[in-house]
Amino acid sequence: MTGLNISEGFTCPAPIQAYDRIVSGHGSGGKMTADLIEKTFRKYLESDGLAQGNDAANLPISRQAKRIAVTTDSHIVSPLFFPGGDIGALSVCGTVNDLLTSGAVPQWLTAGFILEEGFPLSDLEKILASMRERSEEAGIRIVAGDTKVVEHGKGDGIFINTSGVGWIVDDFQPGGEKAQTGDTIILSGTIGDHGMAVLCARGEMGFESDIRSDVAPLNEIVNSLRRAAPHTHVLRDPTRGGLSTTLNEIAVQSHVSVEIDETAVPIRPEVRSICDLLGFDPLYVANEGKLVIFVPEVEAQDALTAIRASRYGENAAVIGRVIHGDRSPVTLRTAFGTGRILESLPGEMLPRIC
Amino acid sequence: MTGLNISEGFTCPAPIQAYDRIVSGHGSGGKMTADLIEKTFRKYLESDGLAQGNDAANLPISRQAKRIAVTTDSHIVSPLFFPGGDIGALSVCGTVNDLLTSGAVPQWLTAGFILEEGFPLSDLEKILASMRERSEEAGIRIVAGDTKVVEHGKGDGIFINTSGVGWIVDDFQPGGEKAQTGDTIILSGTIGDHGMAVLCARGEMGFESDIRSDVAPLNEIVNSLRRAAPHTHVLRDPTRGGLSTTLNEIAVQSHVSVEIDETAVPIRPEVRSICDLLGFDPLYVANEGKLVIFVPEVEAQDALTAIRASRYGENAAVIGRVIHGDRSPVTLRTAFGTGRILESLPGEMLPRIC
Repeated sequence: MTGLNISEGFTCPAPIQAYDRIVSGHGSGGKMTADLIEKTFRKYLESDGLAQGNDAANLPISRQAKRIAVTTDSHIVSPLFFPGGDIGALSVCGTVNDLLTSGAVPQWLTAGFILEEGFPLSDLEKILASMRERSEEAGIRIVAGDTKVVEHGKGDGIFINTSGVGWIVDDFQPGGEKAQTGDTIILSGTIGDHGMAVLCARGEMGFESDIRSDVAPLNEIVNSLRRAAPHTHVLRDPTRGGLSTTLNEIAVQSHVSVEIDETAVPIRPEVRSICDLLGFDPLYVANEGKLVIFVPEVEAQDALTAIRASRYGENAAVIGRVIHGDRSPVTLRTAFGTGRILESLPGEMLPRIC
Repeated sequence: MTGLNISEGFTCPAPIQAYDRIVSGHGSGGKMTADLIEKTFRKYLESDGLAQGNDAANLPISRQAKRIAVTTDSHIVSPLFFPGGDIGALSVCGTVNDLLTSGAVPQWLTAGFILEEGFPLSDLEKILASMRERSEEAGIRIVAGDTKVVEHGKGDGIFINTSGVGWIVDDFQPGGEKAQTGDTIILSGTIGDHGMAVLCARGEMGFESDIRSDVAPLNEIVNSLRRAAPHTHVLRDPTRGGLSTTLNEIAVQSHVSVEIDETAVPIRPEVRSICDLLGFDPLYVANEGKLVIFVPEVEAQDALTAIRASRYGENAAVIGRVIHGDRSPVTLRTAFGTGRILESLPGEMLPRIC
């Protein structure tokens, strides 16, 4: 070979500039993408899988694993930051909780970022720090990632997809189709906090509130429950559509009817006030750190005690039971003794809440 | 209980209207989301995992599985439809190929959709049909999904994240860090087809072309290679950033130098012509159905024969080798006998190509 001609033109090696906002080149797959990964993502997210630097992470299978749980969620919440959390916290906790509801031990996350040109890198760093904090709390590792960039006006700052993998290690495998007549229904805490916190953070209501999102990874509640109520039939987190929609889904999946006691459903006074003021029904407002739990009556007391002793479970309560018969899927027994049929959320109430 | 009062107001059961475009309620998590899943998604995508209807799919672990591969990719290609494929085909093939490059047998996909209000359902159906077709070809099943909706002007029709899980069943575990001096470098076919097909489909060039995207799942090539060249060191698909960027990544990961013979790199004449006309270097243009393969020289001929006999591998060619020394990571030996240093793509060349 006779000499190396450094090529000119667009492949000319350009120094990577310091940017404070996302630009198109950060999605190129070339040097700028590598630089963003190295200087920003790697600063917060580290794992064996990411360190491999290949197109897929090559990972071990746990010896305890009997089956595997797989789930995915995209996150588009607006605003990105709100009291109690942000889109990063949501993206980790939402997927962790979805794994937990199948009885799995959360193991790995993937994270796919769609960034809008002009998005401040300082905001991205805050979100990544939040993802790291919540991943550590949940004992899950982000093993694969992807970054894409869209033009200004073709996205909304940042969207995050998280997909999750967990190992199912024993017969603790709850499912929405497993509810049985006589089951006791437990709610792990207050409802409506997340939806109202995000709504207030939009600043369109003309008032402020102290409501904080309940976004949290619920490993501890599920681990306690695994020991206290090994025959738990159903676990589900009442996110979009709220408690009413979640109960309807379970009732339909299991071909049962459920009856809820309105006065037993824990709701913070400030959440109830804002819902009353704005005409929202807290039974339909999204939660991001709560579980609905169906257990055989015989294990109900132990389950409740265990949940209340767990982090994020101190306000747990028995809210209803599965009843015999082919009535409407979900009935709310009101404070006045009447019954109200609770439907699934029909249309949209609070868009972009998660 | 004394009579059931059907509640009024926003929870009043509303009949689900027939829509021909996405509206906000399709992302509510309530009845309209369920209706969209039932009538549209389920029509094309069916699997045990999706049928479970839970927040995570509960799936078996293959008895052959020794390790597991996990990957993720978000897809934002513009336009959504182009000769040879669409965003649905890309989302399936891209993730399948990322699993294959780790030596895994592709097993499951998750699919997360971010839809913009106003997106035509007819386009969504076309995309889902394409996802079904490519999933069937690749022998992979979509086991979990998610649908979110953003306001008009906060997205761009549809973004799709696919995450993938595959089983690694033997010692065939290529990795970008495994290239060795003396390795033969094989390219499985022509480069530049995908990027130029998408660029031409944008209709901004003032001319038409017959170039079709090469988007395809490459299971057959990898399966042939597994038998013909069991000591394959590296497998990677040269997508964003093109062949040059991919070779640079591998050279850096493996601490080796590679030398490519310019005249050996297969490029279709029509792709070369358009690249020349518009000033693009095909070495940096994205591909979606090609593999770069590093094999020990002793297995190179068998590998080449096997790839050429496989679907999508008929134009495979030996394009270079791994050389001793600490020169620049990638050198292109030109038709004139000179050497040109090939860098990674420095900035952005063709945005939103995948």
